[in-house]
Amino acid sequence: MTAPQEKSPFVQACRREPVPYTPVWFMRQAGRSLPEYRRVREGISMLDSCTRPELITEITMQPLRRYDVDAAILFSDIVVPLRAVGIDVDIKAGIGPVVETPVRTAEDLGPLRALEPGDVPYVTDAVRALVTELGERPLIGFAGGPFTLASYLVEGGPSKNHEATKALMYGNPELWHALLGRLADIIISFLRIQVAAGASAVQLFDSWVGAVAPDDYWQAIMPHTSRIFAALGSAGVPRIHFGVGTGELLRLMGEAGADVVGVDWRIPLDEAVRRVEPGKALQGNLDPAILLAPWEVIEERARDVLVRGRTAEGHVFNLGHGVLPDTDPDVLARLVDLVHAESARAPS
Amino acid sequence: MTAPQEKSPFVQACRREPVPYTPVWFMRQAGRSLPEYRRVREGISMLDSCTRPELITEITMQPLRRYDVDAAILFSDIVVPLRAVGIDVDIKAGIGPVVETPVRTAEDLGPLRALEPGDVPYVTDAVRALVTELGERPLIGFAGGPFTLASYLVEGGPSKNHEATKALMYGNPELWHALLGRLADIIISFLRIQVAAGASAVQLFDSWVGAVAPDDYWQAIMPHTSRIFAALGSAGVPRIHFGVGTGELLRLMGEAGADVVGVDWRIPLDEAVRRVEPGKALQGNLDPAILLAPWEVIEERARDVLVRGRTAEGHVFNLGHGVLPDTDPDVLARLVDLVHAESARAPS
Repeated sequence: MTAPQEKSPFVQACRREPVPYTPVWFMRQAGRSLPEYRRVREGISMLDSCTRPELITEITMQPLRRYDVDAAILFSDIVVPLRAVGIDVDIKAGIGPVVETPVRTAEDLGPLRALEPGDVPYVTDAVRALVTELGERPLIGFAGGPFTLASYLVEGGPSKNHEATKALMYGNPELWHALLGRLADIIISFLRIQVAAGASAVQLFDSWVGAVAPDDYWQAIMPHTSRIFAALGSAGVPRIHFGVGTGELLRLMGEAGADVVGVDWRIPLDEAVRRVEPGKALQGNLDPAILLAPWEVIEERARDVLVRGRTAEGHVFNLGHGVLPDTDPDVLARLVDLVHAESARAPS
Repeated sequence: MTAPQEKSPFVQACRREPVPYTPVWFMRQAGRSLPEYRRVREGISMLDSCTRPELITEITMQPLRRYDVDAAILFSDIVVPLRAVGIDVDIKAGIGPVVETPVRTAEDLGPLRALEPGDVPYVTDAVRALVTELGERPLIGFAGGPFTLASYLVEGGPSKNHEATKALMYGNPELWHALLGRLADIIISFLRIQVAAGASAVQLFDSWVGAVAPDDYWQAIMPHTSRIFAALGSAGVPRIHFGVGTGELLRLMGEAGADVVGVDWRIPLDEAVRRVEPGKALQGNLDPAILLAPWEVIEERARDVLVRGRTAEGHVFNLGHGVLPDTDPDVLARLVDLVHAESARAPS
């Protein structure tokens, strides 16, 4: 690939190549924290807004007009490909994804058919439009990870303890692997569609996978994650893997085939470096709640993240989880500038 | 102390002394998973049930009639001492603790006065009655930890991200330390009252402290936890410290002065052994969700916990968090017997 995005600091950091400064973007940089987002979403449901190419494009671009971030991330939701194959899932305000018929038996797998590009034309259209508009700035494609999607499907909605999901995982491994196999197929397809349309990188958000112990991750989830990353290998784009509370899983999440391992704020980046195998870049990991503190505190903590990040073979600055809704956009703008200025000055 | 409980396997394991078998109890062994609990609670609010000595005693004893567990834990709630000093807090069904006036300024600290034994006569009465009824079986007293109590007070209720709490912690260290200082005073007092009435051990549940990074724990929370454990030192009872998702904090949680470090299910016990400093016993750590799986799975996982637990200087078997409401009590009964039989047979 000789696309202009190849020489962007974001892609270079993902590839562990030298960078002029540490690239930065924010999980959920588009969305609830921006007044212009709330304005364009007025009267439009979350899933509707993820199926209109102009709206996807507009919302994806909004943060880039405010922040000098080094990448855009496609505005979508992890349940979009499930809905696209016909699963009766909706996103309820204040609750999250709700699935009409939870998956409990082999028969329930029926609707989880293969995802075709024709199922998500709005994604292809939006990615193409965005790539043109973004120029040298890379677009990150994304998909939900297999455990997280399985949890919504099995629980029927958001869950604190993932009881039913784990009961299935422990109690019926055959059905569990069949479910995760189908989800992996859908995820691979959804990510390939985004890459084919021009996305420069992909992130697999297995947000809730930190709820399982390492042995269970290895046995019940990692085979599917590995297949997803392997299937994306020939695409040649950096593959990022992120989940919350995954301190004990970081090595395995890297071994599954990620080029970049996302780290939440609970584990210092230099400790994360010691846990992943060599040959991985890291992404993270300022506590999103710190952005609600005075600027002096934010500045000090952001510098600390940069210093620890220098021990990694490559570092993409990010928060340790998504931007919180109450975050002041001006603070994010200032943080981007700080990260760029500090890292350009420091020996890398 | 030469009380009969001193020679119980539970206290011996906490003290890292040889035991005839691995002692076991379960966080939330009393409560929602038991039909007899739901029966006695009918029409009585949670906080009311925590202030009636006969009800506290009955509910504390209920699991001991079903399970051969090695310790009872006082039925109470972490907000009981807050309510006792006059904080307007209630426990709403399906929500959790709700605080009428959240703490945001120095003036809001006013109501957090010192806790006197006369504020919680029902606790003294219940502990005394229980100690008599339990005989050689130890009673564990408990209190909520400073971060967790602070979070309920600052947020005004349960919180996913603890934003306001962290904003205070990062943004106003003076008020933060004043708040945690007052909470530590109340916690010390509440635990001393339970020990004075006959509790054989205490557990500090700082359930949500895993939401902070190690540096923040060290700086903002640990000084107060250390003071709590130090103040309990002369009481001579084992001090247990537990929180969820605390893989990165285990060493510090031990260093704060705990004799026993509680471990959630995310981190294998043999890895937890490597993280805590020598001279600590461990407690844990079967995933509570495993109890919803078939018995063969539970058996295999429980054995695995026992094997890994043997690498610790002392091991108290427990779940990695509280018993889930849907758990079958018969499964817990069977698990207790398994832990006893397996560990009595195995070389320790």
